[in-house]
Amino acid sequence: MMLVNGQPSDSVSALDRGLSYGDGLFETIRFENSKAPLWGRHMQRLALGCERLRIPMPDGELLRQEAQQVSAGLREFVLRITLTRGLGERGYAPPAVAAPTRIVAAFTMPTISNALYIHGIRLHRCKTMLADQPLLAGIKHLNRLEQVLARAEWNDPAIGEGLVCDYRGNVVSATAANLFAVVDGKVVTPAVNRCGVAGVARGAMLDALPDCQVRDLPLDEALSASELFLSSSVRGILPVQAVGDTVYAPGPVVRAMQQHWCVLGFPTEQA
Amino acid sequence: MMLVNGQPSDSVSALDRGLSYGDGLFETIRFENSKAPLWGRHMQRLALGCERLRIPMPDGELLRQEAQQVSAGLREFVLRITLTRGLGERGYAPPAVAAPTRIVAAFTMPTISNALYIHGIRLHRCKTMLADQPLLAGIKHLNRLEQVLARAEWNDPAIGEGLVCDYRGNVVSATAANLFAVVDGKVVTPAVNRCGVAGVARGAMLDALPDCQVRDLPLDEALSASELFLSSSVRGILPVQAVGDTVYAPGPVVRAMQQHWCVLGFPTEQA
Repeated sequence: MMLVNGQPSDSVSALDRGLSYGDGLFETIRFENSKAPLWGRHMQRLALGCERLRIPMPDGELLRQEAQQVSAGLREFVLRITLTRGLGERGYAPPAVAAPTRIVAAFTMPTISNALYIHGIRLHRCKTMLADQPLLAGIKHLNRLEQVLARAEWNDPAIGEGLVCDYRGNVVSATAANLFAVVDGKVVTPAVNRCGVAGVARGAMLDALPDCQVRDLPLDEALSASELFLSSSVRGILPVQAVGDTVYAPGPVVRAMQQHWCVLGFPTEQA
Repeated sequence: MMLVNGQPSDSVSALDRGLSYGDGLFETIRFENSKAPLWGRHMQRLALGCERLRIPMPDGELLRQEAQQVSAGLREFVLRITLTRGLGERGYAPPAVAAPTRIVAAFTMPTISNALYIHGIRLHRCKTMLADQPLLAGIKHLNRLEQVLARAEWNDPAIGEGLVCDYRGNVVSATAANLFAVVDGKVVTPAVNRCGVAGVARGAMLDALPDCQVRDLPLDEALSASELFLSSSVRGILPVQAVGDTVYAPGPVVRAMQQHWCVLGFPTEQA
């Protein structure tokens, strides 16, 4: 079920600026036992995105009510909130008074084999590189062609994600998840102030890893890691089993983070 | 009037990938006397975008028929064709078989004072800079947040456009038009292989200016030009009167290009 500006609907105006220019933001929020353990973080990131794009932030309580309404009794689901700048005349100039479009929709949880949580996920090394754009980095906006191009690079179902770099030779993330590496015994995750998304699960992991370094992570350094793992607000914490032909084994850090994921309120999805 | 996949409609699915990810392309095509003098160039650029994003190109004859249908007897109008990858499941992976969404809509021509064609247009110097992304440069895709941010920088109606640079200090274009400069007696227009859009009017001007240099154009060099002018498939050829406080006078090159614009089939819009 779906709500558009609070009304049951599955369509939006063909003149919506979300469609015309990708002028908006989104969040995908996992619900478990009818609760969203990371709700507050999602709202924080949405608010940051609204501030950056100067779109009025919707009321959080309203979004909560609409989430409940579209879930239609589901206890496990993924909520997608899409917020656009609303209807627009032709042309890039934002309307003086924005009347945002708010789409709230529930989707069934994707099925992910438990083997991936135990043994890890295989990554394709993407040729698509992310552009540096500090004005848009970190937030979850609707301009996602880079991710679409990166994800289109493979269709082998045995490969679950792609490793994506920037043009400076640093690893940024997977196509739809953040990345952590254990290098020389230290946990590192790429900075996302020039490109990439500041994932909500990443934020939760960083709180649990106060010594984690947030910095540029050159590809060679990432590939030489003793552990690699992904964080995603929908898929949780996934060890990386391989990047191309380079193989990794799940180690103690990813196992600790998987346990932390359970502490946050998500189910046990690992060995 | 508007057609969505050939049917009269003013809405699209809220699950369209054009809305979810900006996963698509568009063209805005000016019709004059019920004819679109640059139609062929628009179709060429759309085809290039389709190839780059691997979206099937719609039949050109079908688009022509739909353009006629939505124009509803208008002789002067702007046609917007939006082409998306169509419906998608949640997630960046493009569907194995794309069923694109095709939106064809007619808009009235914007009113532009003839004084702007005679004396020129004033430009704001945008702080928003464009990211280098060769994979998306040149084509007219739906990821336009950079342009929205740049255009949002001013709302003085006396300022008609913005001058936008890349992060390397080169001028790229206006927010919704290409730029030409006359420097030391040579015509120069910025290359658009790292960012920017390969404008259809720009292409027509380049054909008429065989000696035009297509290269990086440092901001200082652009500001020192003896002439600056903009090209837009909708607005035509506009002299630049000022960039911030720096003033320019229309010169012989922009006048020749305005004449060429008429030869192409557009009305006389200059002194």
